[in-house]
Amino acid sequence: MDSSETFEQRRAGYQARVNALLERVLPSAATTPARLHGAMREAVMRGGKRLRPLVCYAAAEAAGVPDSLVDAPAAAIELIHCYSLVHDDMPCMDDDDFRRGKPSIHKMYGEDTALLVGDALQTLAWQVLATHSSLNGHDGARVRLVDLLTECAGSAGMAGGQDLDLNGGDRPDLAELEHAYRTKTGALFRAAALAPACVRPDLAVRLRHSLEVFADALGLAFQIRDDLADRDSDRRQQPQGGGANLPSWVQRFGTQAAQERIGELTAIMRSACGDFGDRAGGLQWLIGFMRGRHSASTMK
Amino acid sequence: MDSSETFEQRRAGYQARVNALLERVLPSAATTPARLHGAMREAVMRGGKRLRPLVCYAAAEAAGVPDSLVDAPAAAIELIHCYSLVHDDMPCMDDDDFRRGKPSIHKMYGEDTALLVGDALQTLAWQVLATHSSLNGHDGARVRLVDLLTECAGSAGMAGGQDLDLNGGDRPDLAELEHAYRTKTGALFRAAALAPACVRPDLAVRLRHSLEVFADALGLAFQIRDDLADRDSDRRQQPQGGGANLPSWVQRFGTQAAQERIGELTAIMRSACGDFGDRAGGLQWLIGFMRGRHSASTMK
Repeated sequence: MDSSETFEQRRAGYQARVNALLERVLPSAATTPARLHGAMREAVMRGGKRLRPLVCYAAAEAAGVPDSLVDAPAAAIELIHCYSLVHDDMPCMDDDDFRRGKPSIHKMYGEDTALLVGDALQTLAWQVLATHSSLNGHDGARVRLVDLLTECAGSAGMAGGQDLDLNGGDRPDLAELEHAYRTKTGALFRAAALAPACVRPDLAVRLRHSLEVFADALGLAFQIRDDLADRDSDRRQQPQGGGANLPSWVQRFGTQAAQERIGELTAIMRSACGDFGDRAGGLQWLIGFMRGRHSASTMK
Repeated sequence: MDSSETFEQRRAGYQARVNALLERVLPSAATTPARLHGAMREAVMRGGKRLRPLVCYAAAEAAGVPDSLVDAPAAAIELIHCYSLVHDDMPCMDDDDFRRGKPSIHKMYGEDTALLVGDALQTLAWQVLATHSSLNGHDGARVRLVDLLTECAGSAGMAGGQDLDLNGGDRPDLAELEHAYRTKTGALFRAAALAPACVRPDLAVRLRHSLEVFADALGLAFQIRDDLADRDSDRRQQPQGGGANLPSWVQRFGTQAAQERIGELTAIMRSACGDFGDRAGGLQWLIGFMRGRHSASTMK
């Protein structure tokens, strides 16, 4: 990175960088099974802000880790995120017909292919961590990254949070609701923020902890902010398992309490930034983004 | 292993060993999210012959690799297999209401939970490879195993084969049909047979190649044998994507040709065994199992 530039000036470069990497690791739609490969590319390359990769690069800056060493986890985390969107949109989950202004993958290719697209994108994420040349000679880092990301993506993380969202009941207390948010949405932010610590295991425990605190607050604040922007989120169908959907934070505790909570979380993030001195530019940018001050346009 | 025992005598021990490992790595149904964890355990621990783990242990014997070094890949490959069964049974795929004599996971828990069960079991497989203590000090082996298994499970392997099965057309030629079989079913057998080579990278190229040839023939023969045992496999619904389901090998080329093909594949397997001398007992057992000579009862 060129440290004379601000993170905002470098942001589009990071988005282009992760898009180029995703473009290279996704199998060509000209190779068998062509239909599946085409659908995988559509699911990933139709756009997106690449916010989780930006968290990765911002945390790498804070931890003093070269950008190139977080290219693979940035792409892997984005692949995990994309797989989860494809499966989330399916009729048995949120039943969304559109994603990023286009028909969702199951509407374009059928539910059977959408299921396989999500499955294969998840597998590709682990393949990128195991094989991408940017981590050649860093097998220990590859293993720590698979460890971190599986914890964050699996039943103790994102997938578990989705289950809580479907079956968590309609009167959760604050701790229950925020646990669901921290897993469903927060866990991948946590993975992104801690990925630099996997490639630099000598990072001071205190700094690693500050990255974790920052990511936890960011993920929670980001999701509450999303609730505020999208208050018609009660259209979702009831889960099939007989449980009850969790309400959103805003539905459960109200708009004013949500705004106050975002204020508290912002103070936590700012305090965590203090540990990184003049290397906190990327983290500060993320706070501004969460608060709606930057637009971070999608790449296509 | 106790080399004075035959593989048949050790077989139940291997099954118990992988079951014990699966039992330990699956999250407790008493921890949040309890419903998802219970469903994951049901999907894995309701039984099964653990055939892919047996391939792993047989190949380890052939390659002179200690059993303990293939415990993690044996369990991981079984988790990948179990996730694929849960997703395959869903209404948008094969729409099977029963699995191993009990209602399939989506019938017991709903489609939403079944989708998450499959997703989380896949993630758990990679977590086992990255973290299981049997591979402590072997980070290079962990990375090679993730590389091998992702190739075999992803769009170039199992998931891609499932797509070909759904959309491969109703008049495939022999090469097309066998490519679909080699990926959909054969790829996980290949992963199991080559896992020992990942923990012993100094294995002679010739022996690695013989394991690969053996596994390729076994996977294909096993699936054709399955077709012969289950000739009512045309009940499957048409795929949603507008493609056409592949016929089974037996439907496409007939019973007699199928039996001849199994004979050819058996000869290939026997020839590959010749490279391993008196360490081929497990591989020989697998040939017998494929031909229906051993029963290999399930564990529960």
